[in-house]
Amino acid sequence: MTMFGLKESEVATLVRAVSVGGGEDFDRDAIEERFARATWSGLAEPGDRLAGRAIQQLGAVRALTAVVEHWDPERFAATLSADGDAVGDDDMAQAIDRWMPRLKSNTALIALRQAARFGARLLTPDDTLWPSRLNDLDWHAPSALWVRGTDEALAGIERGIALVGARAATGYGEHITMEASAGLVDRGYTIVSGAAYGIDGMAHRAALASHGLTVAFLAGGVDRFYPSGHDALLGRIVENGVVISELPCGSPPTKWRFLQRNRLIAAASMATVVLEAGWRSGSLNTAGHAATLGRPLGAVPGPVTSAASAGCHRLIRDYDAVCVTNPDQMAELAPLEHALLTIDEVAGAEQSAASSSAGSDSSSPRDTDAVRLLDALSARSARSADDVAARSGLAISTVRAQLGLLELDGRVTETERGWKRVASERSRRA
Amino acid sequence: MTMFGLKESEVATLVRAVSVGGGEDFDRDAIEERFARATWSGLAEPGDRLAGRAIQQLGAVRALTAVVEHWDPERFAATLSADGDAVGDDDMAQAIDRWMPRLKSNTALIALRQAARFGARLLTPDDTLWPSRLNDLDWHAPSALWVRGTDEALAGIERGIALVGARAATGYGEHITMEASAGLVDRGYTIVSGAAYGIDGMAHRAALASHGLTVAFLAGGVDRFYPSGHDALLGRIVENGVVISELPCGSPPTKWRFLQRNRLIAAASMATVVLEAGWRSGSLNTAGHAATLGRPLGAVPGPVTSAASAGCHRLIRDYDAVCVTNPDQMAELAPLEHALLTIDEVAGAEQSAASSSAGSDSSSPRDTDAVRLLDALSARSARSADDVAARSGLAISTVRAQLGLLELDGRVTETERGWKRVASERSRRA
Repeated sequence: MTMFGLKESEVATLVRAVSVGGGEDFDRDAIEERFARATWSGLAEPGDRLAGRAIQQLGAVRALTAVVEHWDPERFAATLSADGDAVGDDDMAQAIDRWMPRLKSNTALIALRQAARFGARLLTPDDTLWPSRLNDLDWHAPSALWVRGTDEALAGIERGIALVGARAATGYGEHITMEASAGLVDRGYTIVSGAAYGIDGMAHRAALASHGLTVAFLAGGVDRFYPSGHDALLGRIVENGVVISELPCGSPPTKWRFLQRNRLIAAASMATVVLEAGWRSGSLNTAGHAATLGRPLGAVPGPVTSAASAGCHRLIRDYDAVCVTNPDQMAELAPLEHALLTIDEVAGAEQSAASSSAGSDSSSPRDTDAVRLLDALSARSARSADDVAARSGLAISTVRAQLGLLELDGRVTETERGWKRVASERSRRA
Repeated sequence: MTMFGLKESEVATLVRAVSVGGGEDFDRDAIEERFARATWSGLAEPGDRLAGRAIQQLGAVRALTAVVEHWDPERFAATLSADGDAVGDDDMAQAIDRWMPRLKSNTALIALRQAARFGARLLTPDDTLWPSRLNDLDWHAPSALWVRGTDEALAGIERGIALVGARAATGYGEHITMEASAGLVDRGYTIVSGAAYGIDGMAHRAALASHGLTVAFLAGGVDRFYPSGHDALLGRIVENGVVISELPCGSPPTKWRFLQRNRLIAAASMATVVLEAGWRSGSLNTAGHAATLGRPLGAVPGPVTSAASAGCHRLIRDYDAVCVTNPDQMAELAPLEHALLTIDEVAGAEQSAASSSAGSDSSSPRDTDAVRLLDALSARSARSADDVAARSGLAISTVRAQLGLLELDGRVTETERGWKRVASERSRRA
C-alpha cells in the first residue's frame, strides 16, 4: 500500500516515532492526517493564508491530495469558495505555483527522519498538548509544530507570557528582563520568547535559573539552533522547557520566517511584554501581532535618553501598550485564573484543542513578497528565477515581477547566470 | 470720605501705585473694586469656595460690605442661594467665622504698602493681563493676584506649559527638565512652575538661560521668596519673567497654600508635564488639578529602577497621562495655535479679558461631577464606589475615574472598606 506515493509502512513507522506517546492508537486516517500536515509544514511558507484555508476547509489530507493530483486552479478555487468567500483563480494559481516547486515525494520523509534523529516530535491540532491559542490565528495558524522538550513545558504554554525585546540590549534592559522573568516564574507563569541575543536570551536564562518553564519559538528547524551562540542555552531549554518551530527539520531561518515566528510568540502567549526595543526593533513586530490578536500588550519604560527604550515608549504612546514597571503589573495583564489548563487538567481536555479553528475571514497579509524574495537570493552566487521561486515559496510569476521592481530599486541585479542580491543589501536590511 | 472705614485718598493712592499703568483712568468704583479684591485675598484662604462664590455673585465690594457689616449667616446664605444652589446656614456661618478674625481695618493697607515697596502689582480679572485660564476655576478662582515681573511674561502665560516635578530630583530628572524647558522655549512656549528645588528650579533656570519667558507661582507673598535658597533665581525671574501669588505681601507659605498654589499652576497653563516624581510627590497634586480641569497632562518616563520616576509611571499607567519623551511631544499636548494672545495682541484685546471674567455660574460638567461625588461621600463612614454611584446618580465608570482624580487631588481617600472624603474637605470646600 502507498500513501501519497510513498511506502505506507515506512510513513507509519516514522509518524509514530515522532508522536507524543508513540502514536500507538493511531489508525490509518490519523497517520495520513499527520503525514499530510508534516508535508504541508514544508510545502507552504509560515502564515500562507490559502494553504491554511485549504487545510481547514478540506482537511490536510484532501488539500494535499489536490496538490498532488494537480487540480487546476479553477477547480481548487471553486472547491474552497463553496464554503466561504470567493477565492480568485489568479490567487489560487499563484498559491499552487508557490507550493508545486517544493512538492517532492520524499521531502517530508527526510524531515521526519531528521526529527526522529533529534528527538523532535510532531504536534498537530489534534494533540492534547497543541497550544490552543494558536487557533486564534485562523487561516494563518501553523499546519503543524515541530517540538523538542518536555510535555510539562508544552502544557505550560497555557500560562505563557511573552517577554521580548531587542538584540542590542543595555545593562538596564537585561536587568529588568531578569527581574521580570524570575518574578513571573515565581507567580506561576511560563516564559515565552524567541531565543535571540539580548532580551530574549536573558528572559529564557532567568526562567531556567528560577527553575521555571520556558518556551523558545525558532524561525528555522529545531534541529539547527539559531543563533549558534545560543546552542548551549537552547540545549538547556530542550532539557527543561521546549523549543518549537512550525518549519520542518532542515529549514534555515529567513527574515520572513523571523517575522512569522513572531506571530506564534504573540498568539501562543496570554500577553506580550516588550522590555527594551529601539525605534524600529523587530520586537515591535511581535507587539503588533499581539495587538492584532487582541492580546494584552505591555511595555517597560526606560530613560528617554536611551535609544534602546524608544520603541517601548512608542508602544505606550502610540499603540496603547500598558506601561508596566514590575512583575506584578505584568501579571495583571493576564491574571492566571484566565489560564485554561494546567498539566494535570490537560489530560481531561481532549476535545477543546481542535474545535476553535473554524475559518473566519481576515484581511490578506501585507505585501511582504519582497522580503521573502530577498531571503531567497544570494549576494555571491547567481540563481535562476525558478530556483528563487522554489527557495522562497513564491509563484514564478510573482518572482519575475518582484525581481524587476527590486532591480529598479537597485537591490538585486541580473547576471549572465541569474539573479544576485546587491552586495550592500544584507547590511542594509540588518 | 471713607472706604470701608479707611481714608479714601490713601486707599486710592496705594491702589493706583500697585496697578498696571498707574491706574490713571480708575474712577471711585474701580478703586473700590480693586481694594475689595485686595482685601479678600488676605481674608479668605486660597480656593475658599464660598468666598469665591460670594465675590462672583455679589461682586467683591458688596460681598466685602456684607462681611464688614456683620450680616448674619442666614441673610448671607439666603442672598447667595437666591442666585444658584442653596447655601447651608451652617456652612455660611463657618465661612464667616473663618473670615472675621482676619477682618482688621488696616490689614489690606499694610499689604498694599508692602507691595508698593517691593514693586509688586495687584492684578484683578478686569486687567487685560489677567491670566484668563484661571477663570476656569470658577468659584475656586483667586480673587486677585500679586505679581512681580514683566508685562511680557504676564502676557506669555497664555502660551504657558507647566513643567513640574519632585524636589528630590536625580541627575536624569534635571537633565530631561533642562532639555524640555529649553526645547519648549525654542518653540515659543512660556515655562510655568513653582520655584521649588529640584525639577521646578531647573525648569525656570533653563528657560532663563534660553532667554525665554518663565512664570513662578508662589505659595506665600511675593515679598518673601521661598525657598530662600532660590532668592537669586527668583530675583532673576522678577527681572525677566514674573513671580505670582494669590496671597498678599507678608503671607507665609503653608502646606495648604502649596496645594492651592498647584491649582494655579495647572489652571494657568495650557498643559502640565510631570518630569520626575516619586510615588507620592506633590507634583502629582498639580497633575490631578490639570486632569480635573481637563488640561492635557503629560509625564516623562524614566528607569523603572528609579523611585524618582515612579510617580510619572503611575500617571501614565493609572491616570491616562500621555507618555512624553521630548519637547516635540510635549508641544503636541498643547499646540501653539491654541494659545490665544501674544504680547502685541494683548493691547488690542482689552474687552475680551474683562468679558470672560464676568461671574458666570456655568461650572464645567467635570467640576459638577466632582461636587456631586463629594456630596455623596462621607468623611466618617467609608462607602463603596457602587454606593457612591447610587447616591450621586453618576455612572459607575464616572465615579471610578473621578475618585481617582480626587484622590490625586488629596480630597478623597480609599480605605479597606471603601471611599471617604478627607476630613478637612468640608471646611476646604466651604
